[in-house]
Amino acid sequence: MKIDEVLKIRMSRDPGDFARVAAAVAATDGLIEDIETLYLGKDHAIHEVTIEFPDEARRDALLRALEAMIGDTGVRLLGRVDHVFQLHEGGKIASRSTLKIDRVKTLRGVYTPGVARVCEAIRETPQLARRYTSIGSTVGVFTNGTRVLGLGNIGPQAAMPVMEGKAALYSELIGLAAVPVLVDTEDVDEFVDTVVRVAPTFGGIHLEDISSPACFEIERRLDDALSIPVMHDDRHGTAVAVLSGLIKACETLELRLQDRVVAQIGLGAAGLGIADLLLAYGVETVLAVDKNPANAARVPAATPCEFDEALARADIVVATTGVPGLIKPEQIRRGQIVFALSNPYPEIEPADALAAGARFATDGSHVNNLLGFPGLFKGAMDTGRERIDHAMKIAAAEVIASRAPADDLLPDALDRALHREVAAAVARAARRPGR
Amino acid sequence: MKIDEVLKIRMSRDPGDFARVAAAVAATDGLIEDIETLYLGKDHAIHEVTIEFPDEARRDALLRALEAMIGDTGVRLLGRVDHVFQLHEGGKIASRSTLKIDRVKTLRGVYTPGVARVCEAIRETPQLARRYTSIGSTVGVFTNGTRVLGLGNIGPQAAMPVMEGKAALYSELIGLAAVPVLVDTEDVDEFVDTVVRVAPTFGGIHLEDISSPACFEIERRLDDALSIPVMHDDRHGTAVAVLSGLIKACETLELRLQDRVVAQIGLGAAGLGIADLLLAYGVETVLAVDKNPANAARVPAATPCEFDEALARADIVVATTGVPGLIKPEQIRRGQIVFALSNPYPEIEPADALAAGARFATDGSHVNNLLGFPGLFKGAMDTGRERIDHAMKIAAAEVIASRAPADDLLPDALDRALHREVAAAVARAARRPGR
Repeated sequence: MKIDEVLKIRMSRDPGDFARVAAAVAATDGLIEDIETLYLGKDHAIHEVTIEFPDEARRDALLRALEAMIGDTGVRLLGRVDHVFQLHEGGKIASRSTLKIDRVKTLRGVYTPGVARVCEAIRETPQLARRYTSIGSTVGVFTNGTRVLGLGNIGPQAAMPVMEGKAALYSELIGLAAVPVLVDTEDVDEFVDTVVRVAPTFGGIHLEDISSPACFEIERRLDDALSIPVMHDDRHGTAVAVLSGLIKACETLELRLQDRVVAQIGLGAAGLGIADLLLAYGVETVLAVDKNPANAARVPAATPCEFDEALARADIVVATTGVPGLIKPEQIRRGQIVFALSNPYPEIEPADALAAGARFATDGSHVNNLLGFPGLFKGAMDTGRERIDHAMKIAAAEVIASRAPADDLLPDALDRALHREVAAAVARAARRPGR
Repeated sequence: MKIDEVLKIRMSRDPGDFARVAAAVAATDGLIEDIETLYLGKDHAIHEVTIEFPDEARRDALLRALEAMIGDTGVRLLGRVDHVFQLHEGGKIASRSTLKIDRVKTLRGVYTPGVARVCEAIRETPQLARRYTSIGSTVGVFTNGTRVLGLGNIGPQAAMPVMEGKAALYSELIGLAAVPVLVDTEDVDEFVDTVVRVAPTFGGIHLEDISSPACFEIERRLDDALSIPVMHDDRHGTAVAVLSGLIKACETLELRLQDRVVAQIGLGAAGLGIADLLLAYGVETVLAVDKNPANAARVPAATPCEFDEALARADIVVATTGVPGLIKPEQIRRGQIVFALSNPYPEIEPADALAAGARFATDGSHVNNLLGFPGLFKGAMDTGRERIDHAMKIAAAEVIASRAPADDLLPDALDRALHREVAAAVARAARRPGR
C-alpha cells in the first residue's frame, strides 16, 4: 500500500545537500510531493518534505539513508511529521455563532430582551422552531462507541474522532450542521431513552458505530418514537454506495441487475442494509450467507445459502464479513462482479479477484458510504420526511451511478456538486405523488 | 422604554419626499439612525430606515403620519421590518468543520483510514481526547425549558433561541464552542441521567433556565457525578455581575463592602447565588428575604429577615424577585445602593430610586450575567478544574469591577478583551497554590 510520509529535514545552504536528498529519495523509489520551508537561515534551512513511497520498507530505507548522511554533509533528519495527528489537534468541528455580535443592537436582538419574542412565537406556533432556530438544519450524530471501524468496542470518547469526521463531512460536503453526541451506555433502553429525550434539539438522528444486534433494535425503536428521520449509516449509507456501484457495473456489462444472482456474504448491519436495498430495487435472487444461521435469516425475502454454494452460483458477490482473505482466488467464477468490502483488509484483494477471472472487483476503500449519507440526509431533512425509505435510497444510488466516470464504478466523493444532486434526487423521491 | 423601529419606505426621486419623511420623524421625536437603500429606480427608491423612538406611542404616531402621506406625495410606507426575527432566520449557531476537506489526503486523514490511529491513541491514553477532539473546548448548554426568561415553562424547543443566544455569545466573546442540548423531561432523575450519559461529549456543562427548586438538585447531583465543571448560569453568572457592581460602587463611595449590610430580596436561583457569593467575599451581614420562609433559610450563613425591616436596615438592597414595582420609593433610605434586577421590569425603576435618595441604583438590563459566564467558564475549562468555586467567581468579579469606566458600575459586555482578562484571572485563581 502506498504511503505518504512527511519528513522534517535540515539542509545546509549548499545546493549539493538538496541533490543528495533528492537522489536518496529516488534510490528508494520515493516521489517528492510538497516541500515547505519552515526556516531559512544564513547557513541552513529546514524543510518539511512530503514523499510518497510504494511501501513502508522503502520509506524505512530512506530514513536509514538520511540518518547515514549526518557528519559528511549538512543534511540532518530532524524528525517525522504526523499530519493525521496534526489535523486532529483541537478537534475537527466547532459550534460557532453565525452572526457577528459586536453592537448593542444585535446583542439586544439575539439575547435579552429581543429573543423573548422569538421564544413566544415558537411556543405559540411550534413549527416556527424550524425557521427561527438551528434545529431543522442540525443532525445529531450518536454513538456509544461499541463497534468503531475495525477497532471494536473502544467506548464513546475514543470514538469521537470518527464522529467528528462524520460531522465535518456533513458540513463540508452538503452544508448541514452536525453535532456528535457521545452516549455513555451499552444498554439499549438507556441509549434509546437518552436519544429520545434530547431529540428535540435536532432535525435528524444519525446512528454510528453501534454494535450489532443492538443497533437494529435502537434504530427500530427510534424510528417508531421520533418524527424526524433516523439514519443508521453503517446500514443505509453503505447500501446506497453498493447499489450505485452495482448499477454502474451492470450498465457497463449491459446486464440487468434485477436478473443477476447476488450473494450477500455477512449479514451484519452493512450486509443487512445491502440485501434489503437490492431486494427493494427488484433483484430477484439474493443469497444470504452468514456463519450464524440466525443472521442469514434476518432478511426474509433472501435465500439462506452455504458459503461455497453461494460463491458458485452468484453473478455478483458482496462481502461484508470483517474476515480478511475469506474468499480464495480459486473460488472466483469467470465474469463475476466482486465487492469485497471489509476494511482495511478485504475478503479478497481486487487485483487477485481480477486475476482469477472476475469482471469487476473492488474493495471498501472505494465503495464508500461517504458517497451516500450526506445527500441522503440533506434530502430527507429538506422535505421534512419522517423516514428514509428505499425509494429515497434508490434515487440516491441512481444519481451516484450516473455520475461515475466511464472507466470507474463510482464518482469522486469529494465532489460537492454530486452531493447536491443526490440531495435533490432524494428530495424529489420523497415528494413523489402516490407515496 | 426607547425602541428601535425599522421601516421600509418608498419615496419618489424628488428631494421633497425625503424632507417630508424627515420632518415627520422629527415631529414624533424620532432619531434617524441608519438608512439603507434597497432599490434605486428612475422614478422612485426604496429605503430601509432605522429610527429610535422614545416610546411606542410616538412610533405609532409616525406610522399614522406616513400612512396619511399616500396620495399627496410619492411617500409610501411599505412595511415594518422585524430585525429580531430576521436575525433568527435559520438559527444563530452552526457546527462547522474547522478543516477544508477537499483533497483525498485530507479525507484519508480525518476519516478512514487515518482517523483510526487517533481513536486508538485515545483508547490507550484517554487524556488525549482533550487534545485531539473538540471535547475539551466544547460546552454543552442544557435546558428543559421550564423557566425561560420571564416567560415561564415554555418547553425545550421554544427555549432554543435563548440557548442558541448563550452558545453564540460563548463563541463570539471568548471563542468557546457551545452546543445547546434540549432535554425533554421535567423529571429531575431523568434530566440528571440524560446529562450524565451524554457528558463525555463535553468539556463543561452549562445549565440554563431550569425552574427552581429542581435546578438546585440538578446542579448538586451533576457536580457530584461529573468530573467537568458545571455552571448554573442563573445562579453563578448573575452573582458575579452583582458582586462586580457592588465592588465598584463601594470603591467609588470609599466604603468597605464587607462591612455593609446587604438585603438580598428573593432567594431563587439568582438570589441564592448572590447571597452565597457575597458571604464568601466576606460580607458579614446578609439579610435574606423571601415570601417563602423555607427559601429565606436556604443560605445558612445569612440572616432571615422581614421585607420592611430589611429595607430599613440595609446599606445595599439587591432584589431578584420577579415582582415589578415591589419596592416603593418611600422605602428607600438616603444613601442606599439599590440593584433591582428583575427583567424586564425591575422592583423599582433606577430613576425613582435615585430620586428617593439612593446613592446608586441600577437594574437587570445593566447588571448582566453576560459579563461573567464566558470568562468564568473559559478559565475553568482551560485549567481542567472540576468545580467552579467562590475564589474563581471572586477573581472574575474583581477584574470586571476594575475595568468599569469611572462613571459607571460595570464595563461593556461586548468588549472581547474584558472576557479574556476574566478568563485569565479565573485560571490564575484556579491554579493558586494551597487550594
